[in-house]
Amino acid sequence: MITAREIIQKKRDRETLTPAQIAAFINGYVTGEIADYQVSAWLMAVYLNGLSTEETLALTRAMRDSGHRLDLSSIPSRKIDKHSTGGVGDKTSIIIAPIAAACGLTVPMITGRGLGHTGGTLDKLASIPGFDAKPSPERLVDILKAAGAAIIGQTEDLAPADRLIYALRDVTSTIESIPLITASILSKKIAEDIDGLVLDVKTGAGAFMPTIERARALARSIVDVSEKMKTKIVAVITDMEQPLGREIGNAMEIRECIRFLKGEAPEDLETVCLALAAYMIDLGGAAKTFDHARRMAYDHGYAAIERRAAAALDQPTPG
Amino acid sequence: MITAREIIQKKRDRETLTPAQIAAFINGYVTGEIADYQVSAWLMAVYLNGLSTEETLALTRAMRDSGHRLDLSSIPSRKIDKHSTGGVGDKTSIIIAPIAAACGLTVPMITGRGLGHTGGTLDKLASIPGFDAKPSPERLVDILKAAGAAIIGQTEDLAPADRLIYALRDVTSTIESIPLITASILSKKIAEDIDGLVLDVKTGAGAFMPTIERARALARSIVDVSEKMKTKIVAVITDMEQPLGREIGNAMEIRECIRFLKGEAPEDLETVCLALAAYMIDLGGAAKTFDHARRMAYDHGYAAIERRAAAALDQPTPG
Repeated sequence: MITAREIIQKKRDRETLTPAQIAAFINGYVTGEIADYQVSAWLMAVYLNGLSTEETLALTRAMRDSGHRLDLSSIPSRKIDKHSTGGVGDKTSIIIAPIAAACGLTVPMITGRGLGHTGGTLDKLASIPGFDAKPSPERLVDILKAAGAAIIGQTEDLAPADRLIYALRDVTSTIESIPLITASILSKKIAEDIDGLVLDVKTGAGAFMPTIERARALARSIVDVSEKMKTKIVAVITDMEQPLGREIGNAMEIRECIRFLKGEAPEDLETVCLALAAYMIDLGGAAKTFDHARRMAYDHGYAAIERRAAAALDQPTPG
Repeated sequence: MITAREIIQKKRDRETLTPAQIAAFINGYVTGEIADYQVSAWLMAVYLNGLSTEETLALTRAMRDSGHRLDLSSIPSRKIDKHSTGGVGDKTSIIIAPIAAACGLTVPMITGRGLGHTGGTLDKLASIPGFDAKPSPERLVDILKAAGAAIIGQTEDLAPADRLIYALRDVTSTIESIPLITASILSKKIAEDIDGLVLDVKTGAGAFMPTIERARALARSIVDVSEKMKTKIVAVITDMEQPLGREIGNAMEIRECIRFLKGEAPEDLETVCLALAAYMIDLGGAAKTFDHARRMAYDHGYAAIERRAAAALDQPTPG
């Protein structure tokens, strides 16, 4: 049996860890057998020496399997999610989820709080009085069946290893590591029981990946691991040299989203949102060609939004 | 005010830390303001990216100043210590301390437990019934005045930062780092209030530095930092391809030391011990030339041992 010390040492010495060793290390951390000071030394070794694609895959699997996974098998339509790496004024999720749902997809979106200088989708939604970020799994399935889309916060038991490791990375300056970001994003997304994912890697002065090269490397890493996990994926690199849309601030961004869905859309936000929605529609097999998906996002998305929103509002309000 | 996170980040990015930043980090750890998981991430960054001589000097000073220092100013003769990096059958301290004392030096030796596969001097001495490893500072000074030498264990308040950091390095696979070993050894030795130090770096299959290159690099690092701290130093690299002397095991090694001091010395052990003792005598200014120091170690050491040992035994036994 290999010890935590030996696992740290191997990564320190640029050796390759086996999937079983990575799983044992992550499980040991979640159960409390491996201390946080050992995990943080390992995270720094990973930051500086990297992980191979196979190691990143094993880490993603171990983190996904650290908790419960959603079961959306009772919903027949394709489950497609979108993830952005975050930027200033990025309110795309709130606009895209209803558009993709209006085009026939199911969008089970689990999202987070703000990170560094970027606002979090969950913080923006929390500015809506009465917004319930943590419905039960049963209620989530009901909402997805009725409205086609739901945006909720990360639950306690979805990829708990990611929650623990993320908190540790935050205080040990090990955030900006491509394999660690890959495993953090994909472990949560794949635990959502989705068929496909559209990844939006933001690049530029307002993003976590300041250069196009770093953005490309992150996109490559996530695509490689996602494909090995048999989850369909499309990665898009979008500009974050300036804020997206015109509003920054939680309630103001929600207001901008509502105006957008009524047809009043700033050009940059419209371009990004409709492109991402089109990739989701294309990935979900709801269109014949990508051009068709683009048209669907524009025509069916806009046209159908108000009707579906009204249907969702007929559901009982959260207990 | 720089945060712990920023100090970790700078070392992660191969930037140079200022002495004030290193001192704040070490003090923060000792007072509990900086968490062990942050220190262990920093230790791994140091292991992989190194420290400059100036940074190692600052770390040594910060660790030395984390606790009380011995005050041996009431003892007029030169205070010289010896430190070995450890090996199998290494009982040299127990032989050299009385030889150097018999030649007129004061030897205030603070020593440790076993490390890895090597036995610790303190463990060997603990096989003597009634041995007191932790006399009070006053009693230590009395013993040094009467016997010229004392070997005691590390006290709680001598370089406590080293104790904490050492324990953390042990479980995070960050032991074998030249700057970290340098600071660990010198912070304790210089807190002993010594005038000079003879450093014995062991190399070979039974040592922590398996190659002569690594042994030389460690010796170079310790000599550089020691000189900047105005503590005289001589470094010797000795062979540890096979156990030193004939005995391995705590009580058996003590018996071998007693036999040695009565003139029954295995050749390898005699060569190493008399050379190290001669360097101590030379460093302490007790001889005119190194050849003279060698003769003194042999003649005065052997001849005077039994008389001085008898004098030491006349002291009251520890409370």
